[in-house]
Amino acid sequence: MSQRHAVITGAASGIGAATAKALRRKGYWITALDLNDPGPLADLWHPIDLDARPYRLPEFDLPVDVLVNAAGLPPRPTTEAKVLRVNFLALRRVTEHLLPHMKKGGAIVNVASKAGAKWRENIAQVKRLIGQANDACLDDFVSAEKIDTVRSYDLSKEAVVVWTKKMTAGLVERGLRMNSVSPAAVETPILGDFTRALGERSTRGIELTKRSGTPDEIAGVIAFLASPSSEWVRGCNIEADGGLTAILDTENTIRPD
Amino acid sequence: MSQRHAVITGAASGIGAATAKALRRKGYWITALDLNDPGPLADLWHPIDLDARPYRLPEFDLPVDVLVNAAGLPPRPTTEAKVLRVNFLALRRVTEHLLPHMKKGGAIVNVASKAGAKWRENIAQVKRLIGQANDACLDDFVSAEKIDTVRSYDLSKEAVVVWTKKMTAGLVERGLRMNSVSPAAVETPILGDFTRALGERSTRGIELTKRSGTPDEIAGVIAFLASPSSEWVRGCNIEADGGLTAILDTENTIRPD
Repeated sequence: MSQRHAVITGAASGIGAATAKALRRKGYWITALDLNDPGPLADLWHPIDLDARPYRLPEFDLPVDVLVNAAGLPPRPTTEAKVLRVNFLALRRVTEHLLPHMKKGGAIVNVASKAGAKWRENIAQVKRLIGQANDACLDDFVSAEKIDTVRSYDLSKEAVVVWTKKMTAGLVERGLRMNSVSPAAVETPILGDFTRALGERSTRGIELTKRSGTPDEIAGVIAFLASPSSEWVRGCNIEADGGLTAILDTENTIRPD
Repeated sequence: MSQRHAVITGAASGIGAATAKALRRKGYWITALDLNDPGPLADLWHPIDLDARPYRLPEFDLPVDVLVNAAGLPPRPTTEAKVLRVNFLALRRVTEHLLPHMKKGGAIVNVASKAGAKWRENIAQVKRLIGQANDACLDDFVSAEKIDTVRSYDLSKEAVVVWTKKMTAGLVERGLRMNSVSPAAVETPILGDFTRALGERSTRGIELTKRSGTPDEIAGVIAFLASPSSEWVRGCNIEADGGLTAILDTENTIRPD
């Protein structure tokens, strides 16, 4: 078997870096797409700013077995359009660019978030975001929809979960599959941004699960979704959140009994 | 590291047998609980009929790292109470019996089903089933709730998903975790029972995903949930259904756009 090739966005830090490390340990050749140098975590680095307009996506000579979309921005005041652009529109653009390069049986893994869990309730707005073809118009979209900082993040991740599901039937036809992983709080360089923006919602989550997750714990789930062992898992969103979703479902829906 | 020990119910056939094979390959010592002899798949076999009343659960000398609850009955006419008893009440009883024997860090994996996906809509009835402490009263429960063959199966699996979530907070306190896996159609000896009972619902699912899953594909997901790589995945229900859930979510909720 020839060496497997994984392309990872956001590979220079946090969950992306942990994923690069985990897949390298399994023998993958790693191509990193990141603004910053991932150093020895990657075999090849394409510097790229997913918020720049326009940005040029590199050509890929090696066929791709696995694409991990780990690049993402946290909620920060005044960056609402940028969060939607990087977390969802760029993720979609990178994926569509890579699809023709992917080998049959290939797997795509998107890093979504617990913040995207309410996609059903917000489906109308999610569909309007998915309908945005031109990322130059996102500022107008943000004003028209009155999207604040926290909402921009939640919406970007809802869109990742929904788009992952929506692509599934078409990908099955092409012999490919895509899944998402939804972490809650994770010990990365941007954890402080989340606690500042989300406040009580973030601290209570960490309290209920006793601690934050680690990037390696999320990378373990991503590595599974990249591997042939998850062949029959398609269009699925795996919560990797220390039980937070289950505990909140229990509080809100299952109890009292 | 000493040899890991997995207890598997239903290890003599179908998903349970594939799981025994997968975990044995990873070096686990396997204890099987099954009515039938699992042969060389297990290191130790406790013959047990989970539908018998009373049945005696064996004592366990070896501490347990992993419990996989794979035993289950398909929907068959006139067996409604039996399906609820084996698929949910016995699963709960076996798990509660084993909890004191489990090592810190241990993992429990329950085989649920795509049939359990509507647990939110049916939460009131699910809670009434979870409230049934005495499996001798299940015939009355089935009559009182007017539960037909298909509903008995769906309800039993909804209860598995809900109970898995409900237990999560308490298990985290004990350093344990429990997740469920939800397959749709799988090539096992009982696949015919499902197509007969579920009719169109079953055949359409297979059509949408192009084929049934294989027991090995489901076992791969179970082996992941049993392993330390899924440490931060708790109370989660992983759909291992070839994309069926995503495709139906797209049809019903996401489209048209």
